[in-house]
Amino acid sequence: MSTVSMTEIVDALREAREAHIEKLKDWLRIPSVSTDSTRKDEVRRAGEFIRDELVDAGFAVRLDETPGHPVALGKWDGAPGAPTLLVYGHYDVQPPEPLELWRHGAFEPTVEGENLIARGATDDKGQALALVLGIGEVLRRRGSLPVNVTFLIEGEEEIGSPNLEPYIREHADELKADIALISDCSQFGPGLPAITVGLKGLCYLQIDLTGPNRDLHSGSFGGAVDNPANVLATMISRLKDDDGRVLIPGFYDKVRELTDEDRAAIRALPFSEEEFARDLEVDALHGEKGYGTLERKWARPTLDVNGLLSGWTGEGAKTVLPSRAMAKFSMRLVADQHPDEIAEMTKAFLRELCPPTCTMEISIDHGAEPVLVDPTNPWLAVASRAVERGFGKAPVMIREGGSIPVVSVLKQVLGIDTILLGLGLPDDNAHSPNEKFHLPDYQRGIETAAWLLEEMAGS
Amino acid sequence: MSTVSMTEIVDALREAREAHIEKLKDWLRIPSVSTDSTRKDEVRRAGEFIRDELVDAGFAVRLDETPGHPVALGKWDGAPGAPTLLVYGHYDVQPPEPLELWRHGAFEPTVEGENLIARGATDDKGQALALVLGIGEVLRRRGSLPVNVTFLIEGEEEIGSPNLEPYIREHADELKADIALISDCSQFGPGLPAITVGLKGLCYLQIDLTGPNRDLHSGSFGGAVDNPANVLATMISRLKDDDGRVLIPGFYDKVRELTDEDRAAIRALPFSEEEFARDLEVDALHGEKGYGTLERKWARPTLDVNGLLSGWTGEGAKTVLPSRAMAKFSMRLVADQHPDEIAEMTKAFLRELCPPTCTMEISIDHGAEPVLVDPTNPWLAVASRAVERGFGKAPVMIREGGSIPVVSVLKQVLGIDTILLGLGLPDDNAHSPNEKFHLPDYQRGIETAAWLLEEMAGS
Repeated sequence: MSTVSMTEIVDALREAREAHIEKLKDWLRIPSVSTDSTRKDEVRRAGEFIRDELVDAGFAVRLDETPGHPVALGKWDGAPGAPTLLVYGHYDVQPPEPLELWRHGAFEPTVEGENLIARGATDDKGQALALVLGIGEVLRRRGSLPVNVTFLIEGEEEIGSPNLEPYIREHADELKADIALISDCSQFGPGLPAITVGLKGLCYLQIDLTGPNRDLHSGSFGGAVDNPANVLATMISRLKDDDGRVLIPGFYDKVRELTDEDRAAIRALPFSEEEFARDLEVDALHGEKGYGTLERKWARPTLDVNGLLSGWTGEGAKTVLPSRAMAKFSMRLVADQHPDEIAEMTKAFLRELCPPTCTMEISIDHGAEPVLVDPTNPWLAVASRAVERGFGKAPVMIREGGSIPVVSVLKQVLGIDTILLGLGLPDDNAHSPNEKFHLPDYQRGIETAAWLLEEMAGS
Repeated sequence: MSTVSMTEIVDALREAREAHIEKLKDWLRIPSVSTDSTRKDEVRRAGEFIRDELVDAGFAVRLDETPGHPVALGKWDGAPGAPTLLVYGHYDVQPPEPLELWRHGAFEPTVEGENLIARGATDDKGQALALVLGIGEVLRRRGSLPVNVTFLIEGEEEIGSPNLEPYIREHADELKADIALISDCSQFGPGLPAITVGLKGLCYLQIDLTGPNRDLHSGSFGGAVDNPANVLATMISRLKDDDGRVLIPGFYDKVRELTDEDRAAIRALPFSEEEFARDLEVDALHGEKGYGTLERKWARPTLDVNGLLSGWTGEGAKTVLPSRAMAKFSMRLVADQHPDEIAEMTKAFLRELCPPTCTMEISIDHGAEPVLVDPTNPWLAVASRAVERGFGKAPVMIREGGSIPVVSVLKQVLGIDTILLGLGLPDDNAHSPNEKFHLPDYQRGIETAAWLLEEMAGS
């Protein structure tokens, strides 16, 4: 049994505050832009950095090669019979462009007040390092952990993790765990720590309509032959009604409805529709009738056109009756909709909508499963207590409209749920210039990670 | 009084057949591509060529400068009291690209069987020269014409005649005439000479919708804020119903309905909907319910999307909720619709259709008046008799879906109708590789032009 108390560990973590900030700055100086093939070496260096940090804390560590960037795998499994926590993070970052909008160099981390500014500060180096440092400190001080912990830190998240699912499948035995932890998201707002319990899924399609076999003169042929751009517009208009309801037959069949409790919890959150509209500079918001904006963002499936292209799109007038018209559109799904089923329903409906005057090709570009953690999942309570310790405040349960594909991979391959514990803030500018991380939250995240082990062991 | 009979003139024209073909070939060798600013000198040379031809025939000729390419103006006004004919043509040609699809050089005119192949063969050098040669021969042989004739041959038709309307306004007195003649179109088919009595007008608009002030993540924001691409599709879909009827209030108010006689005449023409569909490779044609394909092409107003652009249009999936969406669309108008009135109606309807979730900008790019020559116009009968002399067959009266803006300029500025006498054939590949002109029709056109003066004088 360890003789080092959590009070001592938290004191040590607080004393190391400046050193931890310097460590994060060192990591952020490595421009690990995974989309940029000329930076392959620097991406690897960022992987080696976190590998070394895990080694230093006392984990058994490997840097595993993949067809792309390597995976840093760190394990401590000295607590047989105790639960196992799998921590996921990523060491690659978004491209920094447009560079001219940064107040400092994107890879020259700079403290401004309580924030650290740099590409990757919040997404995900700052959040991932908080978990490594908090858990690492416990191992360093005590020589052991109260539960087993595996770190899986990849370098391809910003390019869609092409090699992650095969890696997880191949190493499923080593990665076996009871619960996963990811800090790659946000709190609900300043002073409002949150655990994200729902993520939307995705079904992305492209349709290509062909009418006449060549672009035609709209004077000579208009009215004589159907125009695929008009047909496309009509088809798209028939996918949703004016109340924002998707009209694809069967679309809502498997949607898990919000309970009265869910709706009350969402209503209790501080959210201003007026401010939200003002930020987007729209006179009116719009979405499925009967649901508030947060409900629609988090818990209702949606359909959006992502791209349209047909005919002449340059300057001025060209009187072409186009031969082809293209649309990309996608549906964000909620539990328990399945992307493949939704794709089939959508294809069938599109075929019904497409008139005999055009031929249509449909391609499915992308799918992701929705995620919804059962509110009675006991690990939620465990994580909540840890957040209460680390942040001094219990987290609210929120959902996200985006997808984090690794969460459903972990569910499918390893059969485990994920605690999405956001340490960032909604205005952190992830993917934008002047990305930042709020340093007090960095500290709270480090402490929360240490507490989590304690809470897991005691549960 | 002339002592040279029409028989003698026609004999002379037939004897000169080969010389006339050589003359056309000489003109076609000049690459007078008006869109190509590096060919400015060659465009001018083509204007000088036809100027010289008019001088040679005995006309009083000027090459008038404009801000662009010059106008060749030829006049013979020695028949006071007799009617005046204004002949319009153009000496510029379309670009020849794609060059690799030509069987011979585009500017190396080559006879294949009964056809002469070259850029400009039918559009419009061949047709324009036929009129100059036929009328010129009469003047050459007799030293006088039975009516007054003015030739107006411009060099900017293929770039939209930007300087023609100001030129006509400035020279309105000199251009005063009783009727205009243009040969820059087609017969109905081989052996079916035609006079085009109707042209459609045009009202061309662009709408730009803006939703949120920036492109958004379709996961985080989908369902919370309206998507301008979806809105655009819905707005477009509401411009026409499934029966192809335009839904803009008031759109049909001024449409001159086809009479029973009009419809019978159209039905009497040899036209195969099956062949038309086969050529376009569509399984079904489509257009306003209650009208046949030719009726829709010629005599019914239409609405077509000409361009669509929004969001991500490259390869693959990008889950963007676009900030903006753009459509270009145009309506082809028939007598007595007015483009400005239609534009106002359309703008008002679009404003009704646009929801408060988006802002909309509408721009009017282009307008043209429809043209419909009264079937009782006496010059139609005169021209018909001339065609019957020249082609051995009376022409059918047809309409075109396209616009020929000069026709409405002549109507507005000079107050005269135009006889559109097509010498070409529908498959002449105007604007395409291997443009051709059917040489027997060249000869018939030359003779018809000579006969037209005789018929005008006798009417």
